[in-house]
Amino acid sequence: MPPKTKPFQAAFQGELGAFSQEAAMRLLGPEVHVQPCQRFEEVFQSLRDGKVDAAVIPIENTLHGSVHENYDHLLHFDHKIVAETSVRIVHNLIAPPGVRFKDIRRTFSHPVALNQCLHFLAANPQVERVPFYDTAGSVKMVMEDGLKDAAAIASAVSATIYGAHILKRSIEDDRQNFTRFFLLRRSDQPELKLEEPAKKGWKTSLVFSTRNQPGSLFKALSAFALRDLSLTKIESRPLRGKPWEYLFYVDFLGSVEEERVKKALGHLQELADLLRVLGCYRA
Amino acid sequence: MPPKTKPFQAAFQGELGAFSQEAAMRLLGPEVHVQPCQRFEEVFQSLRDGKVDAAVIPIENTLHGSVHENYDHLLHFDHKIVAETSVRIVHNLIAPPGVRFKDIRRTFSHPVALNQCLHFLAANPQVERVPFYDTAGSVKMVMEDGLKDAAAIASAVSATIYGAHILKRSIEDDRQNFTRFFLLRRSDQPELKLEEPAKKGWKTSLVFSTRNQPGSLFKALSAFALRDLSLTKIESRPLRGKPWEYLFYVDFLGSVEEERVKKALGHLQELADLLRVLGCYRA
Repeated sequence: MPPKTKPFQAAFQGELGAFSQEAAMRLLGPEVHVQPCQRFEEVFQSLRDGKVDAAVIPIENTLHGSVHENYDHLLHFDHKIVAETSVRIVHNLIAPPGVRFKDIRRTFSHPVALNQCLHFLAANPQVERVPFYDTAGSVKMVMEDGLKDAAAIASAVSATIYGAHILKRSIEDDRQNFTRFFLLRRSDQPELKLEEPAKKGWKTSLVFSTRNQPGSLFKALSAFALRDLSLTKIESRPLRGKPWEYLFYVDFLGSVEEERVKKALGHLQELADLLRVLGCYRA
Repeated sequence: MPPKTKPFQAAFQGELGAFSQEAAMRLLGPEVHVQPCQRFEEVFQSLRDGKVDAAVIPIENTLHGSVHENYDHLLHFDHKIVAETSVRIVHNLIAPPGVRFKDIRRTFSHPVALNQCLHFLAANPQVERVPFYDTAGSVKMVMEDGLKDAAAIASAVSATIYGAHILKRSIEDDRQNFTRFFLLRRSDQPELKLEEPAKKGWKTSLVFSTRNQPGSLFKALSAFALRDLSLTKIESRPLRGKPWEYLFYVDFLGSVEEERVKKALGHLQELADLLRVLGCYRA
């Protein structure tokens, strides 16, 4: 018998069936083996310790802003961003097989998800909302407990994973709720052949800091503007314990292999106290 | 008898005792009358409809980023920012009077708050975590139900409001968890005499949008840099449904009464598709 190949493993935060798993499947194919973690730090540690081959983390959401904690971990761990994807947050009403919509008297989910389905819940006052830890975890629970009058609000993937069925699809109030995810690898790992066809150009993410002197950000951005590089994200964040210093998160279109990008990074290095390229990936 | 003066009312989102109430008390004095609302939109509507005299909203958190929804409401409603304050998010273990720490077997709170007290919960495995809608709401519930083996995790203010007592103070993992709040008034309301001594200089918040052409943000920032105006926040946000256009949130030090600020705003107006000054207040 030929030696069995170890399956490709990706870590993410949350229960099996979380939106991060949906992102992992989109980035690495539906067959990817996943390793759920309780906390984001564990996700980064698992990758560092070689327990997994890759990690998938949310970095920003169109309603709730950037996940600063993950930017902190990106600075602290020596991982690199190798791909990005954006997942629309679709909430579904999910119940054990055989349970019909008219049987539902309670629905479990994370309070944030419950709050994103207020129109549906207002139109169905017979359904009581019950807060739960996790969206996918609430599907797991209604299945394990075999509840006959209860549903969960969670992703479609979680219904598949736990063998539940979807009673109502897409019950979220806002269809413009997207989360952007990064795929991470260790800096010493070889390049990954990715599932998604790489039709688009390159994008680079970096973090830099400057003293807060008038015009210091303006000077820093000249490194990009003078070379016609297009920014797709910029965000400032006060540095902890250093009241007048700031971290900046920047994404721009371009690859670190391009001459003008190398020059821009050299120029930015002159102007910034700290500069870290977090990764270069297909936009 | 002299006519009774109507008390000053401020709206906020959440239950009585929420961190927004702590911000309201800091901004308007401990005697302020508050009007809790279920959703942020209701907070803005209450102010528009004259049901309250002011509104208090969270705008960004050091761990979780900007509250984009409130920036959307700031653009949509004709309110102005008249003050800001920053509240450290301190979580406390709170129980009905007479209940001792060694009696506690369950603690209720919002999952986000429970996740911010993982060290405390790991050190006290006898205490089961139970997710609840709201931090302050969980104090209300343990008090109303007179639970003898349960506590809530919430703000100190909520213990005072519901007559509960604090068993353990400051059980949060991260002491660098701050939320920044804005105090809002309608644009047609007169200037407010505020409680906090105005020792510091002025700050101005604005939103603008530009086409995503290389260098367009750089040009827009020249309006500030050429006049030595110091930015304290910048953040880009993709415009919904317009893939290549961006909104920018900017805060800078300076008052709209200053000549150089008037010139900077005139200059920015030339370069931006949209420009809205959201308010000018003490930093």
